[in-house]
Amino acid sequence: MDKLQNKWFKESCEMWPGATFTFEVKEVLQSGKSQYQNIDVFDTTSLGRVLVLDDIIQCTQKDEFSYQEMISFLPLCCHKNPEKVLIVGGGDGGVAREVAKHPKVKEIVQVEIDEKVIEVSKKYLQFMAVGFDSEKLELHVGDGFEFMKNHSQEFDVIITDSSDPIGPAVNLFLENYFSLMKSALKPNGIVCSQAGTIWNDLDLVTSTLGYCRNQFPAAAYAYTTVPAYPSGPIGFVIGSLDKNIKFDQPTLVFSREDEKAMNLKYYNSDIHKAAFVLPTFVKYRLA
Amino acid sequence: MDKLQNKWFKESCEMWPGATFTFEVKEVLQSGKSQYQNIDVFDTTSLGRVLVLDDIIQCTQKDEFSYQEMISFLPLCCHKNPEKVLIVGGGDGGVAREVAKHPKVKEIVQVEIDEKVIEVSKKYLQFMAVGFDSEKLELHVGDGFEFMKNHSQEFDVIITDSSDPIGPAVNLFLENYFSLMKSALKPNGIVCSQAGTIWNDLDLVTSTLGYCRNQFPAAAYAYTTVPAYPSGPIGFVIGSLDKNIKFDQPTLVFSREDEKAMNLKYYNSDIHKAAFVLPTFVKYRLA
Repeated sequence: MDKLQNKWFKESCEMWPGATFTFEVKEVLQSGKSQYQNIDVFDTTSLGRVLVLDDIIQCTQKDEFSYQEMISFLPLCCHKNPEKVLIVGGGDGGVAREVAKHPKVKEIVQVEIDEKVIEVSKKYLQFMAVGFDSEKLELHVGDGFEFMKNHSQEFDVIITDSSDPIGPAVNLFLENYFSLMKSALKPNGIVCSQAGTIWNDLDLVTSTLGYCRNQFPAAAYAYTTVPAYPSGPIGFVIGSLDKNIKFDQPTLVFSREDEKAMNLKYYNSDIHKAAFVLPTFVKYRLA
Repeated sequence: MDKLQNKWFKESCEMWPGATFTFEVKEVLQSGKSQYQNIDVFDTTSLGRVLVLDDIIQCTQKDEFSYQEMISFLPLCCHKNPEKVLIVGGGDGGVAREVAKHPKVKEIVQVEIDEKVIEVSKKYLQFMAVGFDSEKLELHVGDGFEFMKNHSQEFDVIITDSSDPIGPAVNLFLENYFSLMKSALKPNGIVCSQAGTIWNDLDLVTSTLGYCRNQFPAAAYAYTTVPAYPSGPIGFVIGSLDKNIKFDQPTLVFSREDEKAMNLKYYNSDIHKAAFVLPTFVKYRLA
């Protein structure tokens, strides 16, 4: 495989030139092109299995729980009654796995554009693809952008688990995507989108939060730590139709028993609050 | 320079095998051995200037402020009156730069073992070495461990800005170091030490916090995000002789004007509180 040098994979992306992450590969489990992108799965010496799309790390077995739990439970626990949830993207199944755990969630609809990602995840990334087994889930293969045009006032929460804004996900970072999500939400609905890192993509964070603010009466940025993503922390833009929402006050506070029952390894009710507290250089840039 | 491949430097350390950070070098400004370690300084295409000791990244111009502000202001703002501060290590000057800003600090004593690090920093890393210009500072070249044996009940705060526990810093992660610091503190004194990351070194974090707890009636772990360190977040063990201390409640709350006056780019009074909030898998491991 020509993208490996002495069994080391080096991530490379025009969004963060000049500094990057590398890992040692034990075995190439999957390498090939779908209709939309290159899909690689590696077994590695230190990160477990790793999913790479178009040469960018999407998730590693070691740390994916941080991302999946936080992108799911932050919006779910901001909402008073998140009964019906839409997931856009998330083809590895990790977000579905987390959303299905929330006690108030009754129905999950997921729209992933790339069937091959689902197939590969079911074969090699079962620890995430287990999410597809939930009885709450209805899975569609298609364009989330198009899907939403035909669904009005239907969802309590919309989670967009996309890759970065190059390639198939570019439309999911634009203002009309936030506008579409708004019309697909029920009253007091909430959206949460992957939105880049404060260290490498502060321009992207600022623009994405700006689009969300233009469409939603309340919006905020929160973050978590995911070592395999460039720079470490990765963040989410969250918008709500409830203008009085307090994002940093979870509506449902979990006990230690709740955390155990849901196998939550990263998210807890205190880290929910802390996730919205920003370093000074970010706070005033986003203000 | 044989550690560069096509102008890329790849960090390598037995503490985190199998996954590592690499960056593109514009120019090698310094490369050589001191009595204690290899010292390299690079100018890079995306991180500004970078200090590397024994092939491990110590700080980059892009993100060093996060580390320096947090290791300094967390303990300083936990203390009611941090008049006299000891810095152990910190040969680049960055911690002295931050400590000197705190309005209550009157005297800073710093003990760095490697004179060559100070010299190289003054030559190539002036943005940190500016800390050595403070009139509050008295700088010693020597072993912090030995220095403390001769200083009893003298300091309000002791900050240990060390490299990782391989090489010259190994003694600074042992229980008798915490015991020595304890005897060098005034009543209600506070210590703060670099203590590894939750993602790569949780065993180290656990043992270091354990040593601190054995010696101090109150101890906690806090963290910040530093993209150039392995995995992103890096943490600190903080111990206090005041058993009633509330680490997450800063004694001095800074206004926006204070932040500006001190040029604080990362630390603020809210992030002080949030820094002590831990992900579930860490919280119960350290409990």
